[in-house]
Amino acid sequence: MYTYEYLFNFTRNVFKKMGCNEADATIISEVFLSAELRGQSSHGMLRLKDYYQLWKAGRINPRPGVKIVHESPSTAVVDGDNAIGMVAAHRSMEIAIDKAMKCGTGWVATKNSNHFGIAGYYAMMALEYDMAGITLTNANPLVAPTFSVSRLLGTNPIAVAIPAGKQPPFVADFATTPIARGKLAVAEKKGEKTLEGFVQDKEGNSTTDPSILKEGGSMLTLGGDYEHGSHKGYCLSAIVDILSAVFSGANFGPFVPPSVAYLPVLKESVGEGTGHFFGAMRIDAFQPAEEFKLKMDKWIETFRGAESAPGKPKVKIPGDIEREKEAQIRRAGISIIPAVICDVKQIAEELELEFEGK
Amino acid sequence: MYTYEYLFNFTRNVFKKMGCNEADATIISEVFLSAELRGQSSHGMLRLKDYYQLWKAGRINPRPGVKIVHESPSTAVVDGDNAIGMVAAHRSMEIAIDKAMKCGTGWVATKNSNHFGIAGYYAMMALEYDMAGITLTNANPLVAPTFSVSRLLGTNPIAVAIPAGKQPPFVADFATTPIARGKLAVAEKKGEKTLEGFVQDKEGNSTTDPSILKEGGSMLTLGGDYEHGSHKGYCLSAIVDILSAVFSGANFGPFVPPSVAYLPVLKESVGEGTGHFFGAMRIDAFQPAEEFKLKMDKWIETFRGAESAPGKPKVKIPGDIEREKEAQIRRAGISIIPAVICDVKQIAEELELEFEGK
Repeated sequence: MYTYEYLFNFTRNVFKKMGCNEADATIISEVFLSAELRGQSSHGMLRLKDYYQLWKAGRINPRPGVKIVHESPSTAVVDGDNAIGMVAAHRSMEIAIDKAMKCGTGWVATKNSNHFGIAGYYAMMALEYDMAGITLTNANPLVAPTFSVSRLLGTNPIAVAIPAGKQPPFVADFATTPIARGKLAVAEKKGEKTLEGFVQDKEGNSTTDPSILKEGGSMLTLGGDYEHGSHKGYCLSAIVDILSAVFSGANFGPFVPPSVAYLPVLKESVGEGTGHFFGAMRIDAFQPAEEFKLKMDKWIETFRGAESAPGKPKVKIPGDIEREKEAQIRRAGISIIPAVICDVKQIAEELELEFEGK
Repeated sequence: MYTYEYLFNFTRNVFKKMGCNEADATIISEVFLSAELRGQSSHGMLRLKDYYQLWKAGRINPRPGVKIVHESPSTAVVDGDNAIGMVAAHRSMEIAIDKAMKCGTGWVATKNSNHFGIAGYYAMMALEYDMAGITLTNANPLVAPTFSVSRLLGTNPIAVAIPAGKQPPFVADFATTPIARGKLAVAEKKGEKTLEGFVQDKEGNSTTDPSILKEGGSMLTLGGDYEHGSHKGYCLSAIVDILSAVFSGANFGPFVPPSVAYLPVLKESVGEGTGHFFGAMRIDAFQPAEEFKLKMDKWIETFRGAESAPGKPKVKIPGDIEREKEAQIRRAGISIIPAVICDVKQIAEELELEFEGK
C-alpha cells in the first residue's frame, strides 16, 4: 500500500526528470493519482511506463507551448504542441471555463495532444465554478462500426459533471463500448473468457476470447449487435470522434496515433495528434445556481429512491461508485499490482529516483 | 399512397382548425411530414390523433407566447407556454442559431413544452447556416435505470447533425434505449415476441413480451444489462433528462407529463411541461468552414470504406438510411396504414375537413 502523497511526489519527480516544469508535472501527477483514487487504476500508475517510453522515443513533448490557434467568444481550438495529454487537456478546460465566465458557455476542441488519463478529471474541473463540465476524447482504433470488421474507432469516452446542492455532483464518465479496454486486458492476463457481446474475431464472429484483438479482432460498440442498438453506440462513438478530431484538426478514427511506444507511428496522418473536446456551461446562464442545485438534489433523490429488482443492488447515481472507492482508498491507501511496481522501479532506476517496493 | 403536398396541406388545416396561426401550423406540419419522409412514421401521421385529443382535452395551447425567460450571450431558457412541441422547439432552435451567429455557439433549454416529433428535424435546422446542431428531449417515463424496476426515464433521444462538403451531412438521431418505443408497439400489434434485452417485467426479469409495459414492466437502457453496459445507457439517458429538464425548469424523469390524452395528468409536478435542449455550433468558430467540410468528407469516405463482415450490409454513415428512405418515399408517395387512415378520417370529420381514404 502506498500513500497518496508518496505516489504523487514520486510521479511528479518522474515527469520533472523528463523535463516537465513544476506546474505541468503537478497537473500530470494529479490526474494520474485521481485515476488511482477513483478506482480507475487502468488509467493510473499502470500507464506511467507508456508515457515514459513515449518520452524516451521522443514521441511526446515535455515542454510544450500549448496555445489557442482559432477562437470566437464561446469557442477555441487549442494546439497542444504534442504535449503530454494532461497538460493540453487541463489548459483547454481552463480556457473553456474562462469563455463560459464571459459568455455563459465555453467549448474547446484540442488537437496535437496525446493520451490524457481519465476524462472525468477535466469535466469535474468545472464544478468548483458552479458550471457543468463535458469532456470527450478520441482514442486508439480498436472498435468496429456496426456490420464492419475494420477497427475505425476508439473506446471514445464521454464525461459529464453537473453540480448539485446537498447531494454530491452527478459525474458520468464512460467509454462508448460495453466494457473498457482495460477490463479486456485484465481478463486476458488472468486467462479468463469474457461474456459474449464485447469483441468479435477478424471475420466478425462473436467470441469470448479477450486476446482476439491481437489476432485482428475488434471491440464492439455499446449495444453489442445491430438488433440491440450497436448502431447507436457507433453513432455516439462517431460523434465523440468528430467533435474531438474534425472540429480541432486532430487525427480522427483509424488515424489516431498509438498511445504506446511499442506500436509504430502510423504512416498516414489526416491531422495533428490525438483530439479532445471540452465544454463548460455556467449554471447561472440558465437559472440561478441555488435554484438549479435544489432541482438537482431532487433529481438525485428521486433516482436514489428507485425500487431495485429483487436481488439487485441499490440504484446508483453516476459518480457514486468512484466516490465510494475514493473514500475507501483514501483510508486504506493505494494498492499497486506487483507487475506495475516492477515497471515503476525500473523507471525510477533509469531516472535515478527512489521507489519503494511494498 | 399520398403525396407530400396532400398530407402537408391537410395537416396544416387540422392545426389551423385547432386555432394555430398559419406560421405555427406550417412548422408543425413540416415536422410531421419530415418524419413520414424519413421513414420514422411512428412520429408522423400516427401521432395526429394524440395531438388532436390533447387539444380537445385543453391540455395543449394552440396560441402560445413562446419566449425567452433567462439568457446569457450563448444561452437561453425558453418558456414554451404549453405549446405544441414543434412550435416551442422550432423557436428554441432559431434562438440557438441566432446566439451562435453572435458568439460561436448557442445553447437553449426549453421548458413548458410538449412532444415535438423527431429530434433530428431541429438538429438539421443548423446545417443550412454551416453549423452543427444538437437536439435532446426527455419523454414519458417507460425506462428503468440499471438494477431498478422503476420507470424513471424516457427513451430520451439524442440528435446531432454535422455538415459535410461533397458528402451528405452526418445526421444521427437515436433513442438511448436498444429499440424505440414505436417498435415495441408494432411487435405488440402483430402479436410477435421481441428479442431478449429490450424489456423486463415488473420484477426485473428479462422477457420477450412486448406488451409487458402494460403490466408494470419497463424498457431497458442501451446496453441491455449491467454486464453489457446498461449503466452507460442509463448515464446517457440521465444526461439528456437533466439537460432538457433540470437546466430548463421542466419536469424531469418520472414527472414528465403524458404525451397522450388517455393517460391522466400526473398528480405531482416538479417543473413546467416537457423539456428539450438545443445546441448550435458555428463551424467557423472552430476553423474555416471549407477546411472543415473537406475533413468531414474524408471522415465519411473513410467510414464508407470500412470492410463489412461476411454476409453483412455495407457500413452506413448516420443519416444514410433516412436519406435512402426519403428518396424512395418521395418517388413512391407516403403510405399510411389503414388504422391511421381511419383515425385521421374521424379527426377530419370532427373538424369539417376532407380526408381521402386510399
